Amino acid sequence: MAESASGAAPGNTPEFPDDPLYKDAVLDLLGAVAYGEISAFERLAEDARMAPTMEDKVAIATMASAEFSKVAALHARITELGGDPFAAMAPFRDAIDLFHAHTAPSDWYESLIKAFVGDGLADDFYREIAAYLDPGTRDLVVASLDDEGHSAFVVDRVRTAIAADPRLGGRLALWGRRLMGEALTQAQRVAAERDALSALLAGGVDRPGLDLAAIGRMFTRITERHAERMAELGLAS
Amino acid sequence: MAESASGAAPGNTPEFPDDPLYKDAVLDLLGAVAYGEISAFERLAEDARMAPTMEDKVAIATMASAEFSKVAALHARITELGGDPFAAMAPFRDAIDLFHAHTAPSDWYESLIKAFVGDGLADDFYREIAAYLDPGTRDLVVASLDDEGHSAFVVDRVRTAIAADPRLGGRLALWGRRLMGEALTQAQRVAAERDALSALLAGGVDRPGLDLAAIGRMFTRITERHAERMAELGLAS
Repeated sequence: MAESASGAAPGNTPEFPDDPLYKDAVLDLLGAVAYGEISAFERLAEDARMAPTMEDKVAIATMASAEFSKVAALHARITELGGDPFAAMAPFRDAIDLFHAHTAPSDWYESLIKAFVGDGLADDFYREIAAYLDPGTRDLVVASLDDEGHSAFVVDRVRTAIAADPRLGGRLALWGRRLMGEALTQAQRVAAERDALSALLAGGVDRPGLDLAAIGRMFTRITERHAERMAELGLAS
Repeated sequence: MAESASGAAPGNTPEFPDDPLYKDAVLDLLGAVAYGEISAFERLAEDARMAPTMEDKVAIATMASAEFSKVAALHARITELGGDPFAAMAPFRDAIDLFHAHTAPSDWYESLIKAFVGDGLADDFYREIAAYLDPGTRDLVVASLDDEGHSAFVVDRVRTAIAADPRLGGRLALWGRRLMGEALTQAQRVAAERDALSALLAGGVDRPGLDLAAIGRMFTRITERHAERMAELGLAS
């Protein structure tokens, strides 16, 4: 908050659009990403308890800690913009909690797929939105998503398990489709409820936005990347 | 492991005693601390789920992540010494898991006390042992314990709750004694089973050790610090 009073506040930099609706959208987005990370941390930490070996436990706990380590910078940026981190996260709790409630993994492999595919989907979506942000916010959002390195172990574990039991591949392919469907359901819910966030995508007087065709192409890209991730796991999408 | 082949391996530095028993003791200690951190992470992450508010959840999850963030450096040092991190941790799983099984918090305040008092006790114990280590290992162990900053929030929450309900103080004081008793029980179990670690405290040909009187003074110091922590929380010990 001390920084808001100084000349370094984002509202005073040329890159940050002087538009209250834009600021609301950024607060929404940062709040959604931050709560998403907290929620991913909780779920991964719970999955770690189910890990079949200590090595797997440490690998999943490492992913959990990596998610959580991004929260502080997102909260700091929200505060810097004059928002309250907990107020900014609140509108997204229902959608994100429902996503997790509707996709509770029934075994260790469903947990792994969810960690890999679910987080990948969320990251792709936020990365698409980040393209419409001022550079400072965009860099922060992209940095908070960039932890692909941890997931090599998921690919290895899932491929090994499917090789040992090919029927598992069919079940996990269905699971991947369910994760995608539930993510879209909750994303639509958020878009319907959060006007500022939707308006960000639609553009403003001095900012380019998305027409319906562009939104269609965005979802095509997200779907394609989902299919690539499923293929990486050796699964049909 | 590449580092073990280079001249920088600790076994080749003048500070690291050329004594297989000493190395076994260090591997034991690093394994115990690393498993303790993983285990603390798991417990704190579970406690975070019980947190009454989102602010409390984030505070506890921050403590969980801080514990886990120490694991990688401990594992790296074990590997550098020619050990296997998972083999080094294995002998301490039973004692640490039993400690947690016997001290499962029944509510949020018991969780907070356990996070503060339990981790404090473990840290004091490891810090005492660290005094008998070569400088490189000692610095690593002490660095892996040093996260007092996160616990101010525990003190604040517990004192506020006791002010609102003085009877809570009596129950939580008993809980603190139980944590201390269970920690001593499991520490004795480890000391009885791990000869190298006990021998480290007893000293070697060219290393000073502890006689019974010195061990007594060590436990006095640990007990005194426990009492100070309880007092900080506003609790009798």
